[in-house]
Amino acid sequence: MKVQGVPMRSIWVESDGWSVGVIDQTRLPHAFVKVKLSTADEAGHAIRSMLVRGAPLIGATAAYGVCLAMRQDASDGALEKALTMLRATRPTAVNLHWALDGMRQVLAPLKPSERVAAAYRQAAALCDEDVAINRAIGEHALKLFQEAWDKKGRKGRLNVLTHCNAGWLATVDWGTALAPMYLAHDAGLPLHVWVDETRPRNQGAVLTAWELGQHGVPHTVIADNVGGHLMQHGEVDLCIVGTDRTTARGDVANKIGTYLKALAAKDNGVPFYVALPSPTIDWTIHDGVKEIPIEQREGTELSDVTGRLPSGDIATVRITPPGSPAANYAFDVTPARLVTALVTERGVCPATEEGMLSLFPERRAQRSAAK
Amino acid sequence: MKVQGVPMRSIWVESDGWSVGVIDQTRLPHAFVKVKLSTADEAGHAIRSMLVRGAPLIGATAAYGVCLAMRQDASDGALEKALTMLRATRPTAVNLHWALDGMRQVLAPLKPSERVAAAYRQAAALCDEDVAINRAIGEHALKLFQEAWDKKGRKGRLNVLTHCNAGWLATVDWGTALAPMYLAHDAGLPLHVWVDETRPRNQGAVLTAWELGQHGVPHTVIADNVGGHLMQHGEVDLCIVGTDRTTARGDVANKIGTYLKALAAKDNGVPFYVALPSPTIDWTIHDGVKEIPIEQREGTELSDVTGRLPSGDIATVRITPPGSPAANYAFDVTPARLVTALVTERGVCPATEEGMLSLFPERRAQRSAAK
Repeated sequence: MKVQGVPMRSIWVESDGWSVGVIDQTRLPHAFVKVKLSTADEAGHAIRSMLVRGAPLIGATAAYGVCLAMRQDASDGALEKALTMLRATRPTAVNLHWALDGMRQVLAPLKPSERVAAAYRQAAALCDEDVAINRAIGEHALKLFQEAWDKKGRKGRLNVLTHCNAGWLATVDWGTALAPMYLAHDAGLPLHVWVDETRPRNQGAVLTAWELGQHGVPHTVIADNVGGHLMQHGEVDLCIVGTDRTTARGDVANKIGTYLKALAAKDNGVPFYVALPSPTIDWTIHDGVKEIPIEQREGTELSDVTGRLPSGDIATVRITPPGSPAANYAFDVTPARLVTALVTERGVCPATEEGMLSLFPERRAQRSAAK
Repeated sequence: MKVQGVPMRSIWVESDGWSVGVIDQTRLPHAFVKVKLSTADEAGHAIRSMLVRGAPLIGATAAYGVCLAMRQDASDGALEKALTMLRATRPTAVNLHWALDGMRQVLAPLKPSERVAAAYRQAAALCDEDVAINRAIGEHALKLFQEAWDKKGRKGRLNVLTHCNAGWLATVDWGTALAPMYLAHDAGLPLHVWVDETRPRNQGAVLTAWELGQHGVPHTVIADNVGGHLMQHGEVDLCIVGTDRTTARGDVANKIGTYLKALAAKDNGVPFYVALPSPTIDWTIHDGVKEIPIEQREGTELSDVTGRLPSGDIATVRITPPGSPAANYAFDVTPARLVTALVTERGVCPATEEGMLSLFPERRAQRSAAK
């Protein structure tokens, strides 16, 4: 997508041919700062500190982290060490494991001398695949937007609500939940997006609003508390969110608070869609609430808020009283029963095991073989 | 309740015998600043600017606003003008109308020369009544806390979730939803309160956390997004919130986001209680979603966040990108079907018209008479 009119991806190989460029997303929207990663440790730090975030981009950054590790030491031991370090950066996203498993599968059988080049090829392929997947998700979801617009009698504007940032900043390009928004806007559909602020890290207010603004998509930032009220009053035509991990039966782990919006959508008959790249599916688990580990992060992410002072300087202020602790759960799980449909790169399916297997029949064979 | 160990109310007549003292709640928890109101306009401003907030305290402040108006001019015209000005300060809370109707009822029949003294008497009586009501609500709700504690087998801690601030800062003293928390804590029940941050104005993070901290009640501030996740994992034993207006059938208008927590409570079998002083009941309406006007406030309340800099200075930072608008709805309506029970000063009842009339049978006679 474009930044100040210039097309770019969220991760790239620098002109030196080996170091890796990313955007420091903790600085957005107040400053647009690119960061160069030169070691696997720097890649790990970028993921842990959320310079990069979003399940697909975490996977891509981890893949390039392996590339950087191989440049320093391409031995078996170094490969395993890098995989272990990178795997431990974030506990919830499954793409991280998918990306690292892919790297190991390609690299482990090779001689150390062949590993660096192969690692960069594999990481680049993973990035290109992510872009293709997201574009396909966007096109499938665009049909759902058009249906909703037709159902509304093509009057007024199509109001879509999203939570957190499942945009191009969360992926290599296009985004998942935001891909259809860009396609719909470009196709002339009068789209308006309700952007959940997404406390505590404000990814909606700072990243989704910034992305949509850069592309010219009309949007309004709202508190996370507002969506239910808007749905009660017919102000939301559909919801679409991303996911960090989806189970084999369609339970969806996504940014904390997604579950509350899904409940409100169900209560008000508003379609609730999840944009789901297949690498985000964890076919090994079923019950998301019981089986998906939920990351707890520092309470200061809630108690301290960063923004621009009237002077333009960036500052962090503490909102809570001294002595009041804060807890910070990063994700929640939306049970499949609240999800209207999953939008994958292969098409749209019900959030059920059968629905998912109908789009990914090769998994049916694997599941039978495993029995 | 106590501030730094000193018992106080949230509104009082100053030692000069006529001016009115309040706490500037917009400065909490960073500074504890008392403000003296000397005119009706200052009282109106205190309500509009949310120096004072919470339905009962808004009513009390408006009543004293009439006192201040009568001191300047006790004519019929001045009385009507003050009532009209004060009535327009906030659109959602019904206590405001209840308090002002009470003032008119007492003052209108009197000679202007008798009005000042009568106004102060009536305002003081209204404040004392609020304190008595809240104390009674606290005692009735305490039984529900004790039941939940017994049901839990008296193990670990009793986890209560609340949204916004329905504490003594929102009332004249004790609070509504927070009254039973103070009673339970003082009675030795091992209470722990999950305090919803309550965006956009952060009343939970700044007021409820401050109140509970001053009284020594264990609590943890969480993002508004978190409650559903905690309920899915058995970490919430009951929810209790206040209300700004409750309809004759038990629909509850309260701080924006309350509806989402009620949905999550229903979905997880967690009791959801509403602490309801009877002056907050609007017996004239039934369907809260359709009939209660929801205040929209400035978007800057969402986009700009105030807190303490590391230096200790207070600063306001903007979190949204330039050019991204923000919308700010102050309340939402929780349908009665999601409310386990209402806790009034007369006891606990189901959130139904019959339930409410069983506690307030005099309303049944009025309703019959009106037919």
